[in-house]
Amino acid sequence: MDERTRLRRLPELQVDEREALYAVLDSGRVAHVGITDAQGPVVLPVAYARVDDSLVLHGSTGSRLFRTLADGAQTCATVTLLDGLVLARSAFESSMNYRSAMVFGRCREVTDKDAKEALLRRFTESQFPGRLTELRDSSPKEFAATLVLELPIEQWSLKVSSGGPEDSQEDIANQGHLWAGVVPIVTEFGEPRPDEQALGVATPPYVSGWTP
Amino acid sequence: MDERTRLRRLPELQVDEREALYAVLDSGRVAHVGITDAQGPVVLPVAYARVDDSLVLHGSTGSRLFRTLADGAQTCATVTLLDGLVLARSAFESSMNYRSAMVFGRCREVTDKDAKEALLRRFTESQFPGRLTELRDSSPKEFAATLVLELPIEQWSLKVSSGGPEDSQEDIANQGHLWAGVVPIVTEFGEPRPDEQALGVATPPYVSGWTP
Repeated sequence: MDERTRLRRLPELQVDEREALYAVLDSGRVAHVGITDAQGPVVLPVAYARVDDSLVLHGSTGSRLFRTLADGAQTCATVTLLDGLVLARSAFESSMNYRSAMVFGRCREVTDKDAKEALLRRFTESQFPGRLTELRDSSPKEFAATLVLELPIEQWSLKVSSGGPEDSQEDIANQGHLWAGVVPIVTEFGEPRPDEQALGVATPPYVSGWTP
Repeated sequence: MDERTRLRRLPELQVDEREALYAVLDSGRVAHVGITDAQGPVVLPVAYARVDDSLVLHGSTGSRLFRTLADGAQTCATVTLLDGLVLARSAFESSMNYRSAMVFGRCREVTDKDAKEALLRRFTESQFPGRLTELRDSSPKEFAATLVLELPIEQWSLKVSSGGPEDSQEDIANQGHLWAGVVPIVTEFGEPRPDEQALGVATPPYVSGWTP
């Protein structure tokens, strides 16, 4: 932990275990990735996969964000999972439960053909488990149009806010008529909707094992 | 629209209507807010409310992010809603449906007492509709410990990806055995969980009208 990753505000929410970080990263799907251009910060949503000790991003060779990242620009990738609303007995103490992981550093572009192909496969397997074995291989043109980046998970922090409201004894005593607690936020998949050409095809069984 | 907010990649996903932007901002709860420090970009999750033509953020006077924003640092606040997974007939075309709103600019700290109080009330009403009328007023100490910031919605962009896979005619012809379509992502509230002191108190009726 360094000056950048140490939480100054609410340090009791900081979690230092790498396994806890990976559990959050593995539960997420999209990171908000920041770069700085001539005018200031730019924050964009990017799908990612954690592969070993890196975040793997992939995007178009035509994307400004991806070219900037491939050039080694300093970045911050933040993954936030919202777990619930915390209804306290005052507006001041009302808040949210969440898990938020931040990874700082510079991306490396993966150019070695075998390594790039392997990471693309890991990426697809992470986002759509089970799907890869059914899909055709990438074409050379698709492969060439895709940038694959690795962000090493070296400088990171994890903040977890959980549990119920933390009202003062005074509020608990005086606001006893109020309901207080947590309203959980739950993310689920809805009924799969085939496109027109797939109307007669059964939904693949692996989809039912997915979590959002 | 300017050089910064015009989408270069996939310009067909850009939406220019301010009402569409507001619909996305009003459906979200947390923005990923970027600032740039001496080492590079930092992206943090921040609860927000849209109030008229601004995003309203509030935080602790002890927070480095909020002090930096209050000092007028250039920022980017991005709100992303994930709507579904798009299972195409190739890994290359597989993607996600989402709505992502970006607001660029500099925050103004709201210091006028009445304006600050009004915005704090709008913030609570936005995050917890109906709750405010039950809660006690903020104490002077709570009020003083809270920074209220307005980010004017002037420089913004909205990107919306919706609909099914966009496979090539060749993939549709050759991969006809594959299921393809959209798996919707749905976010809902779970059963409210009272804290120990609220076990005997009925869940407030307004909670049932909330959407995450």
